[in-house]
Amino acid sequence: MSRLQEAMGAAAEQVNAALDGYIPRSTDSDGRLFDAMRYSTLAGGKRLRPFLVLRSAALFEVPLDWAMPSAAAIEMVHTYSLVHDDLPAMDDDDLRRGLPTCHKKFDDATAILAGDSLLTLAFELVAAPGGHPDPGVRAEITHQLAIAAGGGGMAGGQMMDLAAEDSTLDLTAVTRLQGKKTGALFHFSCVAGAILAKRGAAESMERTALGRYAEAIGLAFQIADDLLDVEGSEADLGKAVQKDAAAGKATFVNLLGLEGARNRAAQLVDEAISALQPFDDKADLLRDVARFIVARKN
Amino acid sequence: MSRLQEAMGAAAEQVNAALDGYIPRSTDSDGRLFDAMRYSTLAGGKRLRPFLVLRSAALFEVPLDWAMPSAAAIEMVHTYSLVHDDLPAMDDDDLRRGLPTCHKKFDDATAILAGDSLLTLAFELVAAPGGHPDPGVRAEITHQLAIAAGGGGMAGGQMMDLAAEDSTLDLTAVTRLQGKKTGALFHFSCVAGAILAKRGAAESMERTALGRYAEAIGLAFQIADDLLDVEGSEADLGKAVQKDAAAGKATFVNLLGLEGARNRAAQLVDEAISALQPFDDKADLLRDVARFIVARKN
Repeated sequence: MSRLQEAMGAAAEQVNAALDGYIPRSTDSDGRLFDAMRYSTLAGGKRLRPFLVLRSAALFEVPLDWAMPSAAAIEMVHTYSLVHDDLPAMDDDDLRRGLPTCHKKFDDATAILAGDSLLTLAFELVAAPGGHPDPGVRAEITHQLAIAAGGGGMAGGQMMDLAAEDSTLDLTAVTRLQGKKTGALFHFSCVAGAILAKRGAAESMERTALGRYAEAIGLAFQIADDLLDVEGSEADLGKAVQKDAAAGKATFVNLLGLEGARNRAAQLVDEAISALQPFDDKADLLRDVARFIVARKN
Repeated sequence: MSRLQEAMGAAAEQVNAALDGYIPRSTDSDGRLFDAMRYSTLAGGKRLRPFLVLRSAALFEVPLDWAMPSAAAIEMVHTYSLVHDDLPAMDDDDLRRGLPTCHKKFDDATAILAGDSLLTLAFELVAAPGGHPDPGVRAEITHQLAIAAGGGGMAGGQMMDLAAEDSTLDLTAVTRLQGKKTGALFHFSCVAGAILAKRGAAESMERTALGRYAEAIGLAFQIADDLLDVEGSEADLGKAVQKDAAAGKATFVNLLGLEGARNRAAQLVDEAISALQPFDDKADLLRDVARFIVARKN
């Protein structure tokens, strides 16, 4: 097992335990809301975004207890987006992380409310006393998380993606779309450490470097996703494949070709690693993440 | 025009102007996301929850600029809940505030994303610098707003409401359900002023009083809604009537009878007004609100 696999596995265990503690259990009268939230959130996944939060926090020696609410919150926001995107009115998917999607396991109304409640719980968590001791940091984390998740970020990207199904986007437009749809949460995850460490103007160079790293790995992640959609198997991915081609969507693969997409992804890995130049070997796992993102099989 | 009507009208104008400024306008590539958010939020409505925020803030002489983000945010959360509740998978309503519901005007996917983005924007707004100058207050407002909106509050109440359609609830259960579904946002609105004024432990009596007021008017509001569903007209209400009876839902009217429901509502008005006893005539408009809530025709 590689150094990165080991570290990601250990972090995923910590994040899973935290998520398990943060999401309440259902009582008799609550209906199945918390069941559905737990089902979708605790179904597994690589916990890549939380790992980025924890590693960016570790760069600045932020205590784990101060960083964990942000790590869990970004996974809740990511999960809510999957639950809503999988709905019949959106991408209409039956399978996610190898299991029935939330609306298949429960029903559409429960999936809508479970997504809504996960998003809300994410904000409750990062704003709550008991996480980071500085309320100013909690307010800034909340603010940045909302910017990443909202109409100018992830949700806006999903809207563009739905609107694009009827049109043909060029490389610039697809890059912009993906920068919002997947890039915005990566950006939050990578700069979270600097915010949690209260890096001020003097250290804004570090925050900028993490932002450049995030932008590169976010785009590389999406190109790798497009490659996996063509080359991967449903068994490895735990979700349907070749959906984008079937939907006639503009992807990096059909815009750049297989070889072109692979080259662009490799170039972005180099850019991501060079963005980390200001950091010493404490950033080695983040360097490994950049390589992993394009080498992964799911 | 009564003193209250005048004050509510003036506040609604200020709130509408704030909402108009807070919600971005669409650009070409954004699709219709911001259009849908603006359509549903700016469609009108009494702005009752923002009015409660502004009046509770005025009790403590909190400047308007410090209170407006919370006032606008609670209206965004309320609007998001209407947009999602109106979806075919939930209550399946075609008409809201006299206009086609969001998914009728746009489509289901856009309505889901517009709701998601309004909820997210509400948190962005209350956490952002530029509103209340104290980041600790911003973090607490964010935290309380999330508690009110989430699985233990409004969204949890909506889940209970959906689950209850197959069963018969008693008065205790309906009261508990409505305490979450409608009461939680009223509670936030009424205690917001005390939070924005940084009322500490010494003044927690004031926050408790506002909480008791909120609980009473929230329940009275819901009883009045049930009465309007039976006695009101679609033209006055701008939405379909007698839906609850058709759905076989347990309401305060069929649990208490028409006369019993009217009496209980009147009793709650008295309780709300007596909860405001610690406050002088600065609370007169809140006293008027309690009376208005059961007297309104829509």
